[in-house]
Amino acid sequence: MSLVVIGTVAFDAIETPFGKTDKIVGGAATYAGLAASYFYDQVKIVAVVGDDFPEQEIEDFHNHHISTEGIQIKTGEKSFFWAGKYHNDMNSRDTLVTELNVLADFDPIIPESYQDCEYLMLGNLTPQIQQTVIKRLHKRPKLIVMDTMNFWMDIAMDDLLETIKLVDVLTINDAEARQLSGEYSLVKAARKILAMGPKYLIIKKGEHGALLFNEDRIFAAPALPLADVFDPTGAGDTFAGGFIGYLAKVGTVNFNNMKNAIIYGSALASFCVEKFGTERLKHLTENDIKARIQEFVSLSSFNIIS
Amino acid sequence: MSLVVIGTVAFDAIETPFGKTDKIVGGAATYAGLAASYFYDQVKIVAVVGDDFPEQEIEDFHNHHISTEGIQIKTGEKSFFWAGKYHNDMNSRDTLVTELNVLADFDPIIPESYQDCEYLMLGNLTPQIQQTVIKRLHKRPKLIVMDTMNFWMDIAMDDLLETIKLVDVLTINDAEARQLSGEYSLVKAARKILAMGPKYLIIKKGEHGALLFNEDRIFAAPALPLADVFDPTGAGDTFAGGFIGYLAKVGTVNFNNMKNAIIYGSALASFCVEKFGTERLKHLTENDIKARIQEFVSLSSFNIIS
Repeated sequence: MSLVVIGTVAFDAIETPFGKTDKIVGGAATYAGLAASYFYDQVKIVAVVGDDFPEQEIEDFHNHHISTEGIQIKTGEKSFFWAGKYHNDMNSRDTLVTELNVLADFDPIIPESYQDCEYLMLGNLTPQIQQTVIKRLHKRPKLIVMDTMNFWMDIAMDDLLETIKLVDVLTINDAEARQLSGEYSLVKAARKILAMGPKYLIIKKGEHGALLFNEDRIFAAPALPLADVFDPTGAGDTFAGGFIGYLAKVGTVNFNNMKNAIIYGSALASFCVEKFGTERLKHLTENDIKARIQEFVSLSSFNIIS
Repeated sequence: MSLVVIGTVAFDAIETPFGKTDKIVGGAATYAGLAASYFYDQVKIVAVVGDDFPEQEIEDFHNHHISTEGIQIKTGEKSFFWAGKYHNDMNSRDTLVTELNVLADFDPIIPESYQDCEYLMLGNLTPQIQQTVIKRLHKRPKLIVMDTMNFWMDIAMDDLLETIKLVDVLTINDAEARQLSGEYSLVKAARKILAMGPKYLIIKKGEHGALLFNEDRIFAAPALPLADVFDPTGAGDTFAGGFIGYLAKVGTVNFNNMKNAIIYGSALASFCVEKFGTERLKHLTENDIKARIQEFVSLSSFNIIS
């Protein structure tokens, strides 16, 4: 049994009010895979890179017990590259460079050893490719989680709607939920989106936490209030990876476990933003995570006897 | 022992995407007083109105066991009047009319029967008047809660800072916390504001809930996700009134009780926005409140055994 993550494994160059980086390793599958690996030891990545991708980074995946058999390395080609600059509020950013490179004709290959996939994380990519991965798995996974973004709503809405139909959990942010549903109220937006297919909807609200919707039930998770957000890149992917990794660990998919999974995902995301790129995410200990979870518990618990 | 609320008792004309009202009764002290009255039966209002203010509305206060001895009625003058129009997102509004009328030279009178004040709610008003009320009480109340807004930061910052020094709890929204502190991070903003005097800071984030800060502790309360926000007018005042009313009821001021008080305040605010003006707030039952609190509990509770 395994947890398959598909998404970008790529280079980012990031500028924030706190500093800037040269090309560092990023990508949705990188963040999600690393996050999931803290809970589950059968994480397997599907991605494509160029031959410029450092061997050491592949080693780092292996050190986290992540299988890279599904990462195609294209000789003579370059990895996907994104450069962006965050504004002072850290909630908005400008894209400075997008070089698709190997991503331009990415045809995901699912190795035979990945066919035991029980948990599938579709990181942000064209909805077409996300769908292809579902179809190339011989057996439908027990749980499919899909992340996406406004970009695909703008240019590939039909594909997006078709893919959404096939998944169990959709994760998007509040602006994207409003765009996808045409509703301002997130409660109404959630009703419409759940009618599009997914059984669960997670609306990510950044510093305001996240909402989980399922039928008539709602769970509101707080975000940890942070003095400094150093680099928000990958926080959403880290959240999704921690979320599905925790569910793979507990092995039972239900609303209560999803609530906990959201707290674990939020905890990992709160680490991710403390340093540039995957730096913080690569070196967490069990105690780091335990202590952070405890912060979430005291942050949001109250005791009313009515 | 009593809970004294000072603030406006006034007329509003409100336009929202759901409809519009003629002049209806509103004002910070009206909302806060009604909200507090559901928890505590010794609520006393300090305010000023003109002789255009309906006798029935004063009766309604009495029906809620609220003392109106401190409401001055100015013969031949008109009550404060505000008209506003909410935008489609319900988070922003335009002020269409502000007629100060009796408020222009409001000199708050504290009746002798109010001198047993243990809990003082300073509803949004000029910081100068808020301060006068504190000084006119012979004995400092056990707890002083102050609500204010960006308007006073723009035109009366020095007065505001002087008044803030004297209170225990300050309630403002996130934009106001950023303006008051000059910090974008709410954690840093809170540190600076707590250094200005108050022991507790509540940052109201509307549909995203509220944060309570005290020394190094933080509590994050969710807001109830609502399908329709009919009229947000008075929600902040209702929140503050419910908050201090609950604390007056339990009688002990500490962080744990404040957490519960925020949930009760949020619950009452969630009723407030369901109808225009005070309509919903005037007719709550104990069971309504109990059921709503239960919704908050299931909304935010999770159970992680680590």
